[in-house]
Amino acid sequence: MTGALARELAQVVPQLADLFAAIGSRTGAEAGITRDAYGAAETAAATLLIDYAKARGLDAGFDRVGNLNVTAHGCFGRAPEIVIGSHLDSVPLGGNYDGLAGVVAGIGLLAALSPVDPAAAARVRVIGFRGEESPWFGTAYLGSKLFTGQLAREEIESLRRPDTGKTLLEHLASIGVAAAALDGRPAVPLDRVRAYLELHIEQGPLLEALGLPVGVATAIRGNIRHPLAKCFGHYAHSAAVPRELRSDALIATAKLIAFADERWRGEIEAGHPDTVFTCGIFATDAKLHAMTKVPGEVTFSINIGGTDDAVMGRLHADLMSRAEQLSREHRVRFDFGRKVGTGATPLDAGIGRMLRDAGAAIGVSPHVMPTVGHDAAMFARRGIPAGMILVRNANGSHNAEEAMSMDDFATGLRVLIAAVVAIGSAGP
Amino acid sequence: MTGALARELAQVVPQLADLFAAIGSRTGAEAGITRDAYGAAETAAATLLIDYAKARGLDAGFDRVGNLNVTAHGCFGRAPEIVIGSHLDSVPLGGNYDGLAGVVAGIGLLAALSPVDPAAAARVRVIGFRGEESPWFGTAYLGSKLFTGQLAREEIESLRRPDTGKTLLEHLASIGVAAAALDGRPAVPLDRVRAYLELHIEQGPLLEALGLPVGVATAIRGNIRHPLAKCFGHYAHSAAVPRELRSDALIATAKLIAFADERWRGEIEAGHPDTVFTCGIFATDAKLHAMTKVPGEVTFSINIGGTDDAVMGRLHADLMSRAEQLSREHRVRFDFGRKVGTGATPLDAGIGRMLRDAGAAIGVSPHVMPTVGHDAAMFARRGIPAGMILVRNANGSHNAEEAMSMDDFATGLRVLIAAVVAIGSAGP
Repeated sequence: MTGALARELAQVVPQLADLFAAIGSRTGAEAGITRDAYGAAETAAATLLIDYAKARGLDAGFDRVGNLNVTAHGCFGRAPEIVIGSHLDSVPLGGNYDGLAGVVAGIGLLAALSPVDPAAAARVRVIGFRGEESPWFGTAYLGSKLFTGQLAREEIESLRRPDTGKTLLEHLASIGVAAAALDGRPAVPLDRVRAYLELHIEQGPLLEALGLPVGVATAIRGNIRHPLAKCFGHYAHSAAVPRELRSDALIATAKLIAFADERWRGEIEAGHPDTVFTCGIFATDAKLHAMTKVPGEVTFSINIGGTDDAVMGRLHADLMSRAEQLSREHRVRFDFGRKVGTGATPLDAGIGRMLRDAGAAIGVSPHVMPTVGHDAAMFARRGIPAGMILVRNANGSHNAEEAMSMDDFATGLRVLIAAVVAIGSAGP
Repeated sequence: MTGALARELAQVVPQLADLFAAIGSRTGAEAGITRDAYGAAETAAATLLIDYAKARGLDAGFDRVGNLNVTAHGCFGRAPEIVIGSHLDSVPLGGNYDGLAGVVAGIGLLAALSPVDPAAAARVRVIGFRGEESPWFGTAYLGSKLFTGQLAREEIESLRRPDTGKTLLEHLASIGVAAAALDGRPAVPLDRVRAYLELHIEQGPLLEALGLPVGVATAIRGNIRHPLAKCFGHYAHSAAVPRELRSDALIATAKLIAFADERWRGEIEAGHPDTVFTCGIFATDAKLHAMTKVPGEVTFSINIGGTDDAVMGRLHADLMSRAEQLSREHRVRFDFGRKVGTGATPLDAGIGRMLRDAGAAIGVSPHVMPTVGHDAAMFARRGIPAGMILVRNANGSHNAEEAMSMDDFATGLRVLIAAVVAIGSAGP
C-alpha cells in the first residue's frame, strides 16, 4: 500500500466511524437498529451515505430500481467492472453493522482510492442494496435480485410487507421507482463486471474465537429444512405402561436428534467441516403433556446447512432412515411435513485467493470459511465471480449487541482495496 | 367354590353391574366421572353403596373419620381380621371404575359370602376410602391415612382444596366428622388385622396386551422425580456457529434422554423389568426458539419409577453422571431443580401366593406384576400384609374411556372371595 493511500485511509476511517454513528442514531434506539426494507429508515441511511459520498467528491444517487449507487466522480453512467455491495436494511431491532458495514466500506474505498488511483476507482460501482433481510417481505435479496435482473414482475406485485400492508410494487413506487423500470433487466449492464466483492460482519463467533480480524468466505451455505416436523406416539400412564408397550414420541425424537448430532460430527471428521445441523424447536404439547405421562406427540424442526449439496443430502437421507428405524423400535410415526431449502452457492476460488493474498500483503491471514446467505449469492448465481470478506463480530448478528471494532473494519477495508487494485492490474 | 356360593354370585354380580351404572350416572356425565374428595359426589356414591349393602342385609355406615364401612350383619363394632378396601373418589373427569371397583367388589363379596360362609364374612370389613386421588388436596391416600392413623392433625388443618378453598378439616366437618375424632389414631383397632386386600382396575394396558382378565401385584412402585429440570446453553445463529463453539442445550438434553432410554432397557435386560423411565415434558422456549437458532434453554422432566429403590437410585445416579459428561461435551449447564419421590413399597409375598393360588383354583393364571400407588401402600407401611388383584382395563385409567368388563370383574371378585376363605382357614 502506498504512503499516499495510507494517508488517505487515516483520514477516511475516522469519518466512516462518524458515519456509522450518525446512521445508527438516525435509524435506531437502545433496543436495536431498525432499517425497514423499502421504507423510510432505509432511505434515511442511504441519504446520509449520499451526503458523505458527495462531500468526498464522489457521484451518488439511486439507480432505476431504487438501490443506492456510488461511483468515482464522472463514472456514474459507466458500466462497472467491479461491483462492491452489501445491504442498507436491517432486521427489526437488529444491529448497525449487518449490511451497512459493506456499503460504508465500498464508499470508504472510493473516498480513499479516488485521489491516489483514479483508474482503479473508476472501475468500481458501490451498491447499497435494499431489502436483503427476509423478515420484511418474507423473502431475501430483493435489492440484489432487482439489480441483477432476477426478480419477476409477478413477485414484485405479489410480495407484501405485513406491517404496512403494501406490496413491493407499492413500496418501490413510494421511493420513486417507475413501474416501467421493473422490466426484469439488470439495473446496470453486467457484461463488463469481472468481480463482485462484499464485506460483511461475520454472523457467528468463529473469528472472535480464533482471534482473527477478518476471514474470506469460500461459499454461501445452502440448507435442507423441515420447519414443522412431528412425531406421533400414544399418551399413556408413565408408571403403568411397560417399555415394550409404549409409543413414546419423545424418546424416539430425542434419539433422532442425538443421532443427527453424531452423524454431523462424523461428516466434520470425514472432512466436511462446513456442515451444520440444528434442531431449534422441540416441544411436547403443553396442553397434554405431564411429568407422569408418556408423551404422545412432539413438534420439532430440522435444519441442515452446508456448502456441499451432496453432503447435506446424505445427512438428510440418513436422518430419514434413522427415523424409519426408530418408528419401528418405538412404535411411533414421524411426519416431517414440508421440506424446503436452497442449494449451496460456491464463491469464486480465484477471487478467494486474491483476497487471501491481499490480506497476507498487509500482514493478516484471513481465516478461510463458509458463510450464510448474502447478496453475493445473487451475483454468483448470475455467473459473476464473487468474493466476500468477513469481519470479526463478538456478539453475533441480528441483535442490538453486534460488535465490530473500527480497527477490524479498517483491516477489512484495506483487504478490499488491495483486491480491487489487484483485479485492476490483472485485467485485460 | 361351592355350588351355593356360585348361585349367590350369579345373583349378586348383575346387581353390582346395576350399582356401577347407578353410581356412574349419579356422579358423571359424558365427559367423565367426577367424585370429588370429601365432597358431595363422593358422599352420593357412598350413599348408593350403603343403600345396596343394607338391602342385602349388611351393616353399612361411615366410621369416625368419614370412610364408608360395610360389614356382615352384627359385625359393625367388631375389630376386623381382613380389611378389603379401595377408594370412592375419582380424578376430575376420570372413569367409573378406578377406586369404585374395589369397594363394590368388597360389598359384593360380603353380599355373596354372608349367606353361605358367615364365619368367613364376619372376619371382613370393607372400606370405601375417601380422598385417594391427589388432584383434590395435592396429596394422595387421605382416607386410608386417616383410617390407619397416619395423618397428622397439622396436615388435616393445612391441606386445602383449591376449588372450594376449604381445608381438609372443614371438608371433614361438612361430612359430619367430629374434630375430636381426628386424634391420629386408627379408625378401628388394627392389631387383629391379618390381611389387607384391594381389587383395582389396572391403570395400564398390560393385561389387555397379555389377554388375561386379572393380575396380582407384587409391589407398589416408588419413584425419583425432577418435575422441573433445565439445561442452559447459548442461543446462536444456526448457520454461523460451528459445532465446536456451540452450547446447544437441545442436543445435550436429547442425548441425556436417549441415554436414559438405553440405560432403562439395560435394567430390564439385567432382570429388573419393573423399572420405568419417562420424560413427559420437554420443550425449547417458545418465546426465544427458532428453526434457525441454536437453542439456549430446554425445560424437561425426569420420572424414574420402580419396585427396587437400589435400581432406581442407580439409574438416577447414572443419569446425573451422563449429564455432567454432556455438560462438558456440549458446553451446557444442567440444573435438575427439585428432586422428589417416594420409595417402593413391596406387597406381601404370602398374600401374593395365596391370590395366585386362588386364581389357579378357578382356572385363571393371574399375571404377576408391579402396580402404581394405591391405598394398599398405607397398610403395607403399617406392617399389615397387603395384597392386590388387578383387573384388565383396555383404555387406561384417569379418563372417561376406562373399560372393565363385568366378566373380568367377576373373575377378580371370585379370586378375592377364594383368598378371604383361604386366609380364614389358614388362621389361628
